[in-house]
Amino acid sequence: MIALLTDFGLRDTYVAELKAVLLTAAPGVPLVDITHCVEPFDVAQGAFLLAQAAAAFPAGAIFLAIVDPGVGTERRPVAFRSGAQRVYVGPDNGLFQRVVRREGAIEAVELPSLPHRYAGGSSATFHGRDIFAPVAAALWNGTALADAGLPIDPATLSAEPPAGPGQGRCAVLHVDSFGNAITSLVPETVPCEPGTKIVLETPESRHLLPVIRTYAQGPEGRPSLLINSAGHLEICCNRGSAAALLGLRPGMALRLRLDQ
Amino acid sequence: MIALLTDFGLRDTYVAELKAVLLTAAPGVPLVDITHCVEPFDVAQGAFLLAQAAAAFPAGAIFLAIVDPGVGTERRPVAFRSGAQRVYVGPDNGLFQRVVRREGAIEAVELPSLPHRYAGGSSATFHGRDIFAPVAAALWNGTALADAGLPIDPATLSAEPPAGPGQGRCAVLHVDSFGNAITSLVPETVPCEPGTKIVLETPESRHLLPVIRTYAQGPEGRPSLLINSAGHLEICCNRGSAAALLGLRPGMALRLRLDQ
Amino acid sequence: MIALLTDFGLRDTYVAELKAVLLTAAPGVPLVDITHCVEPFDVAQGAFLLAQAAAAFPAGAIFLAIVDPGVGTERRPVAFRSGAQRVYVGPDNGLFQRVVRREGAIEAVELPSLPHRYAGGSSATFHGRDIFAPVAAALWNGTALADAGLPIDPATLSAEPPAGPGQGRCAVLHVDSFGNAITSLVPETVPCEPGTKIVLETPESRHLLPVIRTYAQGPEGRPSLLINSAGHLEICCNRGSAAALLGLRPGMALRLRLDQ
Repeated sequence: MIALLTDFGLRDTYVAELKAVLLTAAPGVPLVDITHCVEPFDVAQGAFLLAQAAAAFPAGAIFLAIVDPGVGTERRPVAFRSGAQRVYVGPDNGLFQRVVRREGAIEAVELPSLPHRYAGGSSATFHGRDIFAPVAAALWNGTALADAGLPIDPATLSAEPPAGPGQGRCAVLHVDSFGNAITSLVPETVPCEPGTKIVLETPESRHLLPVIRTYAQGPEGRPSLLINSAGHLEICCNRGSAAALLGLRPGMALRLRLDQ
Repeated sequence: MIALLTDFGLRDTYVAELKAVLLTAAPGVPLVDITHCVEPFDVAQGAFLLAQAAAAFPAGAIFLAIVDPGVGTERRPVAFRSGAQRVYVGPDNGLFQRVVRREGAIEAVELPSLPHRYAGGSSATFHGRDIFAPVAAALWNGTALADAGLPIDPATLSAEPPAGPGQGRCAVLHVDSFGNAITSLVPETVPCEPGTKIVLETPESRHLLPVIRTYAQGPEGRPSLLINSAGHLEICCNRGSAAALLGLRPGMALRLRLDQ
Repeated sequence: MIALLTDFGLRDTYVAELKAVLLTAAPGVPLVDITHCVEPFDVAQGAFLLAQAAAAFPAGAIFLAIVDPGVGTERRPVAFRSGAQRVYVGPDNGLFQRVVRREGAIEAVELPSLPHRYAGGSSATFHGRDIFAPVAAALWNGTALADAGLPIDPATLSAEPPAGPGQGRCAVLHVDSFGNAITSLVPETVPCEPGTKIVLETPESRHLLPVIRTYAQGPEGRPSLLINSAGHLEICCNRGSAAALLGLRPGMALRLRLDQ
């Protein structure tokens, strides 16, 4: 299957144009929308959501990921195979940072940046439709990765910055539509057994959060902490929005530590 | 086919994670999104939308429905077959009330609540992906309902509360994106032939609405009443938003009666 | 494949009801959502988005397009084949203007307006589900266009009004989710080579815009002009919203001319 993640939104025709190209070149390919509601140009959020979703997909899945503020400029268009045998196609601008860190990259190519033949005319602005989608379709049809572009060293793919200063300092990676704030921390960094208490420091305030296992175990209308389904520490609120309650926003710096 | 209804929204990866699990376990299964924009945790709205959509689907269709504020707690995970030979999978928290009332339930099982094997790791918080989706895929692959869990009495599925105090008292079930306010009343309760007039009482005001057959028959910018495509009385406005005009909101109590 | 464009939004069940009808009558048909977020009742916006998306689809594709403020009244339900061998099904209320102008229409029929058999009951208000979707499915199953309705002269399909007063006067057709304002002008009307400057006059202000080739070439936070991937002149802003910056809205009258 081919899974799509973009910042194209749902009001425009851009996603449908991608899909028309994919289904024309690869009839019958199953398409799965990861999301098209990445904040416009927010490569960091796209990188997080891509890595979160990818873990649910099987080996062999192809990902067409496009959050590309520099479309048509010098960033490299790439395709690569990860250590989990998933295949990623898109701009090498940091969008694949988290996936590469999690899964590794074992083979990579730089794609030719001349637009492929697109019946509606070619374009300097829509590489998703004119460059990346045709490559994703060709890979699904059986083209070898090595035949899709010029080989590059997988180690040169944009790598994630180091994990941070430690000591529980982290950032809000994403606020989901329930108002849960997903942090960049995983439980190895901050011990958080259910039943313990964690101190959360935001730039504006400090809070004591019980660690719970399921959303419904938290006190109603009060913030709690759990390990979410992607393995990240997440600040949540039973039947409420933790983000609204605590003023949490994507990118905000936080600190989490065990209450002692 | 498998049809999906959730309150997961469109900005997150949760829906894609469900679909990845479904398509991995049941390659080629056609997936139809009913909606993922149920208000977070609003089981009553989910129940209404599920029943409205289900009527358009054929016998044999499988519904994966997840609006689940109590995920991971004591509400039963269930699957059942309705009298219309449709199959429903999800939490037994009231989400299936309207479907059961309309179609009946002829066979039901309680699902094991230990998460299925999920490659990305199991979770106490994402039963949609880890429990419900694998069951839906197995049923589509031919697993018998009786083999998906322990048999329970279909009569124990959460049943809808009685129809209300009658006399045209009702509630706004849903405000759609055109601003139409769909009420809980069906025409058997309030006689409303096209050409008659109906008195609408809201908590704040009273209005006289002409009964029409098609949206465009109503006076422009003024509220009207019709029997909508799901068989409910609906307050609408030709080229306008009835909800904005009259201050109608989901859950608001109304009274409708024939003008005499 | 069947491609869908409507103003039904994403919160309701209407789109799913269409799809259930399509997949029941034509199992396995690939469905592509163009968009369901056309502004309610905005036929002109729907016409623009349909024509923009259609160019990416292959010959043989079937389009089910429904923006239909006059549902159930006297506008004709139609199906037709364009010169590009694409097939369109929907209301003849202007929604197909741009497609007809671009691709021509070589065969057309008026559809019977008695609702087809719909298991959930028929309806005077939901022709999308009860009339148009069954026809689209039948055409995909191989029914000849001539057998889907009564032949009409393709020249009688609603035609687009003449191109306007020329001299670079135009309108904002659509503001996409990045804030790009797509105008009704194509480059044949206003010469705009990259490197030149264009004067933009809105009802409220006047601006001098550099013509660029790719979004990222524009000055950050300042408006620019390019020829977009659909061949229209588009007012954009590198890493910003041109619409917010200049107060551009769909339908706004503009004038563009070469700076001399």
